[in-house]
Amino acid sequence: MFSVLVTGANRGLGLTFVRQLLNLAKPPEHVFACCRSPENAADLQTIASNNPAVKVLKLDVANKLTYKDTVHDVEQIVGDQGLNLLINNAGIISRGNVENASTEDMERLYQVNVVGTLGVTQAFLPILRRAASFTNSDDETMSIEKSAIVNISSIMGSITLNNSSSAVAYRTSKAALNMLTNCMSIEFASYGVLAVAMHPGWVQTDMGGVDKAPVTPHESVSGVLATLDKLKGLDASGKCYEYTGRTLPW
Amino acid sequence: MFSVLVTGANRGLGLTFVRQLLNLAKPPEHVFACCRSPENAADLQTIASNNPAVKVLKLDVANKLTYKDTVHDVEQIVGDQGLNLLINNAGIISRGNVENASTEDMERLYQVNVVGTLGVTQAFLPILRRAASFTNSDDETMSIEKSAIVNISSIMGSITLNNSSSAVAYRTSKAALNMLTNCMSIEFASYGVLAVAMHPGWVQTDMGGVDKAPVTPHESVSGVLATLDKLKGLDASGKCYEYTGRTLPW
Repeated sequence: MFSVLVTGANRGLGLTFVRQLLNLAKPPEHVFACCRSPENAADLQTIASNNPAVKVLKLDVANKLTYKDTVHDVEQIVGDQGLNLLINNAGIISRGNVENASTEDMERLYQVNVVGTLGVTQAFLPILRRAASFTNSDDETMSIEKSAIVNISSIMGSITLNNSSSAVAYRTSKAALNMLTNCMSIEFASYGVLAVAMHPGWVQTDMGGVDKAPVTPHESVSGVLATLDKLKGLDASGKCYEYTGRTLPW
Repeated sequence: MFSVLVTGANRGLGLTFVRQLLNLAKPPEHVFACCRSPENAADLQTIASNNPAVKVLKLDVANKLTYKDTVHDVEQIVGDQGLNLLINNAGIISRGNVENASTEDMERLYQVNVVGTLGVTQAFLPILRRAASFTNSDDETMSIEKSAIVNISSIMGSITLNNSSSAVAYRTSKAALNMLTNCMSIEFASYGVLAVAMHPGWVQTDMGGVDKAPVTPHESVSGVLATLDKLKGLDASGKCYEYTGRTLPW
């Protein structure tokens, strides 16, 4: 893999993605670590100062005005080789159930988790397509090595497996994100761009709860990367995978 | 059934619901026909002037400020018997695919189709619960006769059956609505309030396209009402049904 972009990269899973991508046997040549406030992302800045592959870029997925400069910066660096992997990791949660969910929470989570993912994907699609058509081999099979979009979703977006009405704004946003991912896979297949949703597990992060969650960020991201590595071709696209590799029902 | 409320009742499916509810062998004693502009709802006003069961009430599902007066009006009329059936029918569509869907369309459809449905349901829940606990019989089985919420969804919200990325804002909103419905069914089961999603078919309305759609509003609503009539108990709740009666996969 030549280049990867991760949103929400300043902490939690996003930060772990950056670290583990750099530790791969064949690390990417470029890791674009995007977050809302690069100036406050101390961990990312430390990583970047020790590793020229990492660029810390400003991107607020809920604010389209921040897309243009970031796309430009990435484009300047990747050139004709394009962007191979977009990890739409930025996301937020809220806790209310059906009776007490607020309009504000419903709209805010949708704006970040779904509309933000759509907007970022639209913005980077031209350079994802460039990566899909840039190739040194005759292998046309879709894969994350060539060009892929990974939307970090959740098992809480699976209606089939649903057993609670807690965090309803989060559940509805992730069900919508799963549909969006499936639509991406259909629309982008002819471009050679794979699109999948990924459930990272219940992870020890600020979102998952450091004390309660059973999965460490390291275990989660290792599993996600191993799962992504196996995805080949049209049949692999458009699904939701768990970090363990199993396919989740909608 | 003592009382029914229909949102988006001024045209299309909503208007057909009002007409067919009045034509049932045992019509409801009260049909609350809600729409954004009662003063412009000529068809509804004609029906209401000929049938004292019908009250035309102002309700903009995307504007919470309009809920309070409507809830109050309904409450005054239904009293201790409560509201038996809430049909969340109001909804909008847009046409863009993933590459050209706008932020505005994504947010607007979510606001009306999902957040509006949630807000209206929260507002009427106390009188739906009142209907669930008001009973002349010993039968505690959940049903639309006792108390139910029907969210008009779409087969276009089924990720399992998805085969297109057109109208992506609509598809994502309906997938989210299906999740919301499932959460309602879990949370409201202990109140005795049933909650289901319903695919009315591809119907000859302004939304479906009068020329292209294969199902007439009459066929659709007849099928929906026949399907709803058969829903009994916890197992029937939390699913998405087609107007033909079959259960749709998520």
